[in-house]
Amino acid sequence: MNKVYLDSNATTCVDPLVLEKMLPYFKENYANPSSMYDSARICANAIEEARKQVASLLGVKNEKQIIFTSCATESANCIIKGAVEKYSTSDKNHIITTKVEHPCVLSTYEFLERKGYKADYISVDENGNLDIDSLLSKITPQTILISVMHANNETGAIYPVYDIAREAKKINKDVKFFVDGVQAAGKFDICLDDTDIDFYSISGHKFHAPKGVGAMYVKKGNLFEPLLHGGHQENSLRAGTMNTPYIVAIGEAARLAKENLSFELSEVKRLRDKLENGILSQLPNAKLNSKAAQRVVNTTNIGFEYIEGELILLYLNDAGIYASSGSACTSGSLDPSHVLRAQNTPFTSLHGSIRFSLSRFTKEEEIDYAIENVVKVIKKLAEISPFQKELANLGL
Amino acid sequence: MNKVYLDSNATTCVDPLVLEKMLPYFKENYANPSSMYDSARICANAIEEARKQVASLLGVKNEKQIIFTSCATESANCIIKGAVEKYSTSDKNHIITTKVEHPCVLSTYEFLERKGYKADYISVDENGNLDIDSLLSKITPQTILISVMHANNETGAIYPVYDIAREAKKINKDVKFFVDGVQAAGKFDICLDDTDIDFYSISGHKFHAPKGVGAMYVKKGNLFEPLLHGGHQENSLRAGTMNTPYIVAIGEAARLAKENLSFELSEVKRLRDKLENGILSQLPNAKLNSKAAQRVVNTTNIGFEYIEGELILLYLNDAGIYASSGSACTSGSLDPSHVLRAQNTPFTSLHGSIRFSLSRFTKEEEIDYAIENVVKVIKKLAEISPFQKELANLGL
Repeated sequence: MNKVYLDSNATTCVDPLVLEKMLPYFKENYANPSSMYDSARICANAIEEARKQVASLLGVKNEKQIIFTSCATESANCIIKGAVEKYSTSDKNHIITTKVEHPCVLSTYEFLERKGYKADYISVDENGNLDIDSLLSKITPQTILISVMHANNETGAIYPVYDIAREAKKINKDVKFFVDGVQAAGKFDICLDDTDIDFYSISGHKFHAPKGVGAMYVKKGNLFEPLLHGGHQENSLRAGTMNTPYIVAIGEAARLAKENLSFELSEVKRLRDKLENGILSQLPNAKLNSKAAQRVVNTTNIGFEYIEGELILLYLNDAGIYASSGSACTSGSLDPSHVLRAQNTPFTSLHGSIRFSLSRFTKEEEIDYAIENVVKVIKKLAEISPFQKELANLGL
Repeated sequence: MNKVYLDSNATTCVDPLVLEKMLPYFKENYANPSSMYDSARICANAIEEARKQVASLLGVKNEKQIIFTSCATESANCIIKGAVEKYSTSDKNHIITTKVEHPCVLSTYEFLERKGYKADYISVDENGNLDIDSLLSKITPQTILISVMHANNETGAIYPVYDIAREAKKINKDVKFFVDGVQAAGKFDICLDDTDIDFYSISGHKFHAPKGVGAMYVKKGNLFEPLLHGGHQENSLRAGTMNTPYIVAIGEAARLAKENLSFELSEVKRLRDKLENGILSQLPNAKLNSKAAQRVVNTTNIGFEYIEGELILLYLNDAGIYASSGSACTSGSLDPSHVLRAQNTPFTSLHGSIRFSLSRFTKEEEIDYAIENVVKVIKKLAEISPFQKELANLGL
């Protein structure tokens, strides 16, 4: 087996059909889509087609509510800072989010705290389910923005954002509701029309478009101060020359994601379950970290008690298996995952937790190979673990 | 002639060598460069190679001073807002720029004015030369940032940014100096080491990389609050998953730009001069707008007295010739160019001013075709102009 890529929540391969679709925009169709001549109009039209495709993936009829950006980190920064800039007043400066958001949301909230905003961070239970009552109880007349991710990148937990948004607005109708949908797009059906969600963000490279393109849904009537000031592109909400090839790519990737949704929900789920069961049934020290009521079908997060995660990844790497211990955005840091800490994952498995994430390109023989080698690696590492007694007690 | 693209200051075609270099990063090398396994390391190494290539184009020895972004608009927003956030205090809130900057600088300055900062905008003379004495006279102990572009996108005027930065720091050693080098990169030799420039930004798609990637030079010791908060990418100065294919592309494009610099300065200049002289010598109502002491060799900006610019562009488009009347970022607006207004271009030619910008891919037969057809179009439009008397006085 050459290599087995099981880190699709970090990034996905570009679908060859997506690459094919974008190539002409690196070649003959290179004009600046903001220019006025014929060749530029070809690019501008391709961008509008992509806008419709992304809108369709998100269950949005009016595609003018879709704005293209360079990545989900930009989208989150843009929405959070822009909404706060627009809607805060001297006595309205309260913002809410969860403890398990992606760093692009958490770091932005921490930045806003340094600027004087008051922030509340909502926790999750030991299964990864969000404490919704706590969230709703924090809403006051001073609250301007709530940010809740749709699905968690590390555990795959799905949060009921439509319900939370509806309940939140019953308490404070002026509150703005932002959903980071990066790990949701392409993994289950999304329908933003007729919901109380004001802003939603997605990232192309999580569903087989290249790294470097994202999109935001900005519900009609909602405003924000742009993060990128400059030209009049993207309805004056995001300045900067439009990246035609990548916008075409995220459009095509959105179309393909929608087309492959039932495959994702059946076949990808089957392989993920096979991987998960294969590991859990053979390794008595393996504990499932992703036990939320609802979770995406491509992700499993397993804690291997008394084994060090970085060592597991190193040995898996040698076997050609690519997985991760946290988000790629925090890799290199030795701190254990903030998501697993938030759900009080026991320290015995916290440092040995590995996320495996599949995609529609994952093959059955890769899963078979992964099961076999994960089991081998953990058994080998158990032999050299300083926790021989504890492992023996578990039956390993 | 199929089409003649003379709008390279709006965007350039992707060099086929650049496309070839980036393709593997859409295919086998798709890992997230922040991940820890072997295939990710290939991507991370490619990014570091690109960083060296961009540093080399900018005359920077320590490549760690180069930060990749999604575009020059992001770079400018990031530097201006980030530096102001970092270095302003309650009594230091003064910023300076020029009236002829790109919208990404001007709009960001206007945004900061709305936030309470004091801004001065320096003018140019009728040839497009910057009023440097005026700029230096505005510097006070309260000044935190000065932004001056290296070369103007509409007229090609080159501003002596090394000298201005040096003189500015003699007046206030703490002032930060930002140079928008978007129209300079690849057009003449740049050497930032041992200068007083603190920040510099470039855009890949102006020198044959794709649209959607930029870079910033951040001189060692200078700090700013990031515009994109999130993961630890790019030395924590720019969060967001790194766009490996485009970063590889801007690196290769930088290498090629450096390699082709003497061709640019000789052959591209010869063709630009041929175009300029060909038009000016045959059309008595044609006036050169780009008369700065120094200017980039690929650009000419010509005012056609008593003829409407949008009409000229329309007729040129029909002949397959692509040029522009201002920057692509402001196209669609009917306001005449803010750059030409700043240099007091007479109203008789202000509305009929066209920018032609070449690249190393421009061919001699395209220039011959362009001269012939520009002359034809202007003569035809002169026939239907309401200013028959004035045109007759000019000899047309």
